Amino acid sequence: MKKEKQQNNTQKLKIIPLGGLEQIGMNITAFEYDDSIIVVDCGLAFPEDDMLGIDLVIPDITYLKDNIDRVKGFFITHGHEDHIGALPYVLREINVPIYATKLTIGIIEHKLEEHDMLNSTKRKVVKYGQHINLGCFRVEFIKTNHSIQDAAALAIYSPAGIVVHTGDFKVDYTPVFGDAIDLQRFGEIGKKGVLALLCDSTNAERPGFTLSEKSVGKTLDNIFAEHKTTRIIIATFASNVDRVQQIINSADRFGRKVAIEGRSMVNIISIASQLGYLTLPDNILIDVDQLKSYPDEQTVIITTGSQGESMAALSRMANGMHRKISIKPNDTIVFSSNPIPGNEKSVTSIINELMRKGADVIFQDVHVSGHACKEDIKLIYSLVNPKYSIPVHGEYKHLVAQAKIAEELGYDKDHIKILSSGDVLEIDENGAEVTGRVQVGNIFVDGLGVGDVGNIVLRDRQRLAEDGIIVVVLTLENGSGQILAGPDIVSRGFVYVRNSESLMDEAKSVLNATMDYCMEHNITDWSKIKNEIKDSLGDFVWKETKRRPMIMPIIMEV
Amino acid sequence: MKKEKQQNNTQKLKIIPLGGLEQIGMNITAFEYDDSIIVVDCGLAFPEDDMLGIDLVIPDITYLKDNIDRVKGFFITHGHEDHIGALPYVLREINVPIYATKLTIGIIEHKLEEHDMLNSTKRKVVKYGQHINLGCFRVEFIKTNHSIQDAAALAIYSPAGIVVHTGDFKVDYTPVFGDAIDLQRFGEIGKKGVLALLCDSTNAERPGFTLSEKSVGKTLDNIFAEHKTTRIIIATFASNVDRVQQIINSADRFGRKVAIEGRSMVNIISIASQLGYLTLPDNILIDVDQLKSYPDEQTVIITTGSQGESMAALSRMANGMHRKISIKPNDTIVFSSNPIPGNEKSVTSIINELMRKGADVIFQDVHVSGHACKEDIKLIYSLVNPKYSIPVHGEYKHLVAQAKIAEELGYDKDHIKILSSGDVLEIDENGAEVTGRVQVGNIFVDGLGVGDVGNIVLRDRQRLAEDGIIVVVLTLENGSGQILAGPDIVSRGFVYVRNSESLMDEAKSVLNATMDYCMEHNITDWSKIKNEIKDSLGDFVWKETKRRPMIMPIIMEV
Repeated sequence: MKKEKQQNNTQKLKIIPLGGLEQIGMNITAFEYDDSIIVVDCGLAFPEDDMLGIDLVIPDITYLKDNIDRVKGFFITHGHEDHIGALPYVLREINVPIYATKLTIGIIEHKLEEHDMLNSTKRKVVKYGQHINLGCFRVEFIKTNHSIQDAAALAIYSPAGIVVHTGDFKVDYTPVFGDAIDLQRFGEIGKKGVLALLCDSTNAERPGFTLSEKSVGKTLDNIFAEHKTTRIIIATFASNVDRVQQIINSADRFGRKVAIEGRSMVNIISIASQLGYLTLPDNILIDVDQLKSYPDEQTVIITTGSQGESMAALSRMANGMHRKISIKPNDTIVFSSNPIPGNEKSVTSIINELMRKGADVIFQDVHVSGHACKEDIKLIYSLVNPKYSIPVHGEYKHLVAQAKIAEELGYDKDHIKILSSGDVLEIDENGAEVTGRVQVGNIFVDGLGVGDVGNIVLRDRQRLAEDGIIVVVLTLENGSGQILAGPDIVSRGFVYVRNSESLMDEAKSVLNATMDYCMEHNITDWSKIKNEIKDSLGDFVWKETKRRPMIMPIIMEV
Repeated sequence: MKKEKQQNNTQKLKIIPLGGLEQIGMNITAFEYDDSIIVVDCGLAFPEDDMLGIDLVIPDITYLKDNIDRVKGFFITHGHEDHIGALPYVLREINVPIYATKLTIGIIEHKLEEHDMLNSTKRKVVKYGQHINLGCFRVEFIKTNHSIQDAAALAIYSPAGIVVHTGDFKVDYTPVFGDAIDLQRFGEIGKKGVLALLCDSTNAERPGFTLSEKSVGKTLDNIFAEHKTTRIIIATFASNVDRVQQIINSADRFGRKVAIEGRSMVNIISIASQLGYLTLPDNILIDVDQLKSYPDEQTVIITTGSQGESMAALSRMANGMHRKISIKPNDTIVFSSNPIPGNEKSVTSIINELMRKGADVIFQDVHVSGHACKEDIKLIYSLVNPKYSIPVHGEYKHLVAQAKIAEELGYDKDHIKILSSGDVLEIDENGAEVTGRVQVGNIFVDGLGVGDVGNIVLRDRQRLAEDGIIVVVLTLENGSGQILAGPDIVSRGFVYVRNSESLMDEAKSVLNATMDYCMEHNITDWSKIKNEIKDSLGDFVWKETKRRPMIMPIIMEV
């Protein structure tokens, strides 16, 4: 971990991804030169299927803590959870300033407020084209487009050369709000000579170009035109303010009022409209409670839950659990979203539920991606023309897909660096090489606990989930070791006991035999008794059921 | 459940889906007329994500058991698990003959043998065009195409009219083995007048026609031509013998030996080649152990695991856990499959692993579906021209998609019947109406247990998986109710205790206070004491951690 050659420290730039390359989310990358470290993004990941009971995953930032004196600040590319979500946790340990564009700072501030950390955190709104000097670094924010407004790429000027980090981006020549991506500036910086490009790989497998967000507006207008007699409910990503703007625009054109449902949607819309990123026609917004005062065909509900999240508003509507909105047979329900990988089944199951209630559900082609496709990526490479290609953002196969694009563009394998989280890449004009590793990993957030659930707890949860638990209790007499009570058996998640009385009776006989054996053989050590119980009961249960519940013997002494 | 009008029994046909309409898999449909019941298919379902620890799901066949004297036999359309998998369980209770085509019977026999039920089960191989008379019914097997050979549609002749059940099917004019679907016979039966069509909906959302299986052969040849210098590993569905045949053909053309890996693949290939459904060039098959005797570029491995199943051969190779095959940086690995909905993430994670090992992974467009698309479905409707449309096979949204196709073809809503499992549809020339419900549901198979895990056990497993368990034990003195030992606390899957000693100490204080309270207030009833413990400890833990572990108090008496 400390193997990097110290003598190189003042000559090469170090690029250290601290997360985000082994899974989707948790984007955080350190850039280090001499006595300065700056960090780009600070995201969380959502738990994988095998992380039972976990709410969030945040990066292990031991490396930053070990070098806390050199850490100068966080530069945030945009306001999505996988780029900002770990800030409230990380800032508690590394309290340095945050730099980002206006909307991004607005969203971060809302998050910090929830964690009661607003006053303790320095933050600075940066404009596109502005340069921030921090230690050995100068960082310039460049306008890009994405599925959230105010996204930025970063040009990081270091003594070892310029690095361009695209963040998540797409090329949108006709954005709904604000300007198109600043391709001229990418070209201008490219002309100066760029050492390395860290480019978004999410859509690197997809051929062609990504469509403009505006194309969705036309689709929405068509849907409104074809469904003039029904209520319309549209689910989309809370943070996609441009999408919400377009839905509001269509609603306005077709004379409908708009109600917003879902906490995160309400929050983001309030932030975005306060900061001027959303234009609301007069009196178009109504409260959900007011819906009943308007005929169905004059209303639109914009809601969260497009990913099938079980607690989100749309899911509660589908399952008849929503307090204020019930699905009616005539509703037109639109998914203005695609399922994120892993969410396909939950999205489908909500579509099925909504259809069972008689709703007409539209779930294809009312969405465009926020990420650059193959040809867009080639465009950025052509403008920036970096010496080194460092694919970022995406699963490993996406990084490989971008590497293949770079190869097509003429890069040889020595100039394409696919990194793993924790790799220390030392880079300058003369070369780029992974010279060491730093500690990285997943820290689990479960309820209020940060890091108190680790792999042992998860393995136990896995086992409990699979086959349940059998608790065996017995009370022994102090001194003699005679059994005063028990062994008693209680199980949970194993079998439904009323149907399995004979099995439990036999299990008790097995335990009695085990205890007799222990007595006869003078086994009095509690841990030995416990092991005998685990072995004999475990074998019996496996033979009878082919299951392996957790067996937990508890001995008391009187 | 017994509400169907008895007087209609001799006049109308009853169609009763006993599974398969609420989830993918578990296809089983009863056809009933007067004293005769025949059953089409008898499939299992694989567990959903919330069915923790469950191995398989089979249908509740209470209705068949209640009417066992009338059940005449099972007609099986093809050999996939979702159509045959429940047979070994269901036949134990309803031992009637099975009718199916040759390969389907071969696969069923292998399954019965594993359950030691071969001798106790009557089975009859049926040829296409053959008619089976059983009670009031006559059943004709009609040639179709699917992703397994020997698939059949059924024409069910009843006194109330003819019903055509397509099973899972596609239209393949150039199948790899055997004949194309017998469209002429569909037309001929259609001319006689068909009461109802039960048609496969799986691909009813997809426009156009489904490509021929043979088109994959060309893709495979291209891959072999482009990768002449590396080993090739191809993952596909074990039961798709035509696909395996085409891989073997390509291997033969390019001078490679073929090794088969994965138990289910080896089984099916052995059944298929014994029965003459697979043509093997001389000496092309080698054992996995012999691979080392050949240069990589002269070998192909065909393997299971194309769906990312964690225990399948490919997954073990990807994770370096396979005893005989290690992935090498130069391997070409082909997924000749698409992920089944719900498997996307596991497939992707294996692709990532394989790529990390340096393999070149091809996972797009080396597959065609085994199910009819929109235009194919229209073709079958045009040939069969049924009075009633009854969409089957697929999730609810797929049934709705087929209903929309039927509407396009001119059917009104009264002639399209989307059923739920358990619905009793009474149908004849004069009408079709759901007149009652029978008991249906999921029976969970977990290890050796069939039906001993129900919703209570699953709910406990869910809770245990989410936040673990805290066991509280105490020993009371018989009579006085004085505490002799405890309360002691043990937890699993909650927090890693060594890091949370103070939390556990405080929890103990809470428990001591609770017991003091019980003593002071003369609360001696055990269930009341247990509730006090659950409440006070539950509240404390929620306040401190925002988690809700299962709390299990156990009281012993001495």
